[in-house]
Amino acid sequence: MAEPAPTASVLIIGNEILSGRTHDVNLRFLAQRLAERGIRLAEARVIPDIAAVIVDTVNELRARYDMVFTTGGIGPTHDDITSECVAAAFGVKWEPHPEAWARLERSYKPGEFNAARQRMATMPRGATLIDNAISIAPGFTIGNVHVLAGVPRIMQAMFESLAPSLPGGSPIAARAVYALGVSEGRIAEGLGLVQARYEDVDIGSYPFYRPDGNGVAIVVKGTDTARLDAAIAEVAALFETLGYAPLAGEPAAA
Amino acid sequence: MAEPAPTASVLIIGNEILSGRTHDVNLRFLAQRLAERGIRLAEARVIPDIAAVIVDTVNELRARYDMVFTTGGIGPTHDDITSECVAAAFGVKWEPHPEAWARLERSYKPGEFNAARQRMATMPRGATLIDNAISIAPGFTIGNVHVLAGVPRIMQAMFESLAPSLPGGSPIAARAVYALGVSEGRIAEGLGLVQARYEDVDIGSYPFYRPDGNGVAIVVKGTDTARLDAAIAEVAALFETLGYAPLAGEPAAA
Repeated sequence: MAEPAPTASVLIIGNEILSGRTHDVNLRFLAQRLAERGIRLAEARVIPDIAAVIVDTVNELRARYDMVFTTGGIGPTHDDITSECVAAAFGVKWEPHPEAWARLERSYKPGEFNAARQRMATMPRGATLIDNAISIAPGFTIGNVHVLAGVPRIMQAMFESLAPSLPGGSPIAARAVYALGVSEGRIAEGLGLVQARYEDVDIGSYPFYRPDGNGVAIVVKGTDTARLDAAIAEVAALFETLGYAPLAGEPAAA
Repeated sequence: MAEPAPTASVLIIGNEILSGRTHDVNLRFLAQRLAERGIRLAEARVIPDIAAVIVDTVNELRARYDMVFTTGGIGPTHDDITSECVAAAFGVKWEPHPEAWARLERSYKPGEFNAARQRMATMPRGATLIDNAISIAPGFTIGNVHVLAGVPRIMQAMFESLAPSLPGGSPIAARAVYALGVSEGRIAEGLGLVQARYEDVDIGSYPFYRPDGNGVAIVVKGTDTARLDAAIAEVAALFETLGYAPLAGEPAAA
């Protein structure tokens, strides 16, 4: 048996997501990149900029999963409280980080490294930096918690800087097949029988509604590609038995 | 003092979101529609199709918030387990719902209302139906938990059918102002002072990076529109004091 995959959770911190102002795109990026590295994303949460909620949630998630990735709340304004809350969650001092301080100080003109910007160089004691190739102000890791920016391209740069050091597992691979004109209710029984024979494979059924036709896509995921190939072949055969032509992959985006 | 707004949480159920296959768009829709109705979305979670996780999370969220909205997992296939899990969470029987059964049965040709489709008419005892104007199979409400589809246009139709019956509050209004060329570090101190004078207003600061220029947008939210107008005027004056022209609203999408 393969080792079980390490587990992760994503904690999205920000009123702007819960108010609907901002459409989060960080979850999908992290979900895809973690799967590629063989890390199982087990849960995601979106919480507001409320200190007690951040502290409690960080502590709950870091106890439950191998890794936690937070996004948002590490800028210089009053609503950026993630860093001090992570310090509180770990019960450590929140203090200037010498290397972060040096990086930021030399990036500003004399006199412009003000108190607000200094907050971005203030971190939980013991934090190690996550490089920010876009806008200098670093993220950080403490324990199993990785604190990333909320702005997507900065978050992505931070994740790529961090990724090589993450414990990984066998990459989670996927195979897909779809058919037009079929409904989930037609294939559900047969699909359930395939799933029962492939307990090590995660079989998902996704109806789609497109201008060029409705149908169902089946996606199988797992770490054993031979088992995926066998499972998807059985699903394709199921489509054919029911009178629908199986098409490889997933339907093009609408 | 106004009554505190009722609180809500959104529970997104589905492996496809956590694997990165599907980009969730339901959270933003619900966030915006709930805010319009004066309901405060306090938390969102994304969890996999694992029965024990669904049961525990439904029970945690329904105890903590005034309302819970679930999306996903109410179709006919083996990975659609939300309905039976909600029954387990409430400790009630999962059984055929006569009205849902009748609606579905008459929508299929004779002999096509098979066992898989009958699962969509099987609900927790005591559930009341949420109409589905798109594809017939209803959602349902039990206690303070509203169980909606995962397919966005079906979810939206279900929400609109349900919305008039939800307890509401004063609508949460917003005002925004932005400036080009400014950075958060320049305005953070002054913005913090405005926030301190408007404790009843939620002031968010959002940097943006666009081909036509970078800058910062400030969004103020609350239920008292006179206070919002006063707060946003102070933010605009802050921009001017620092030498940046305040522009009404938010910058156009990139």
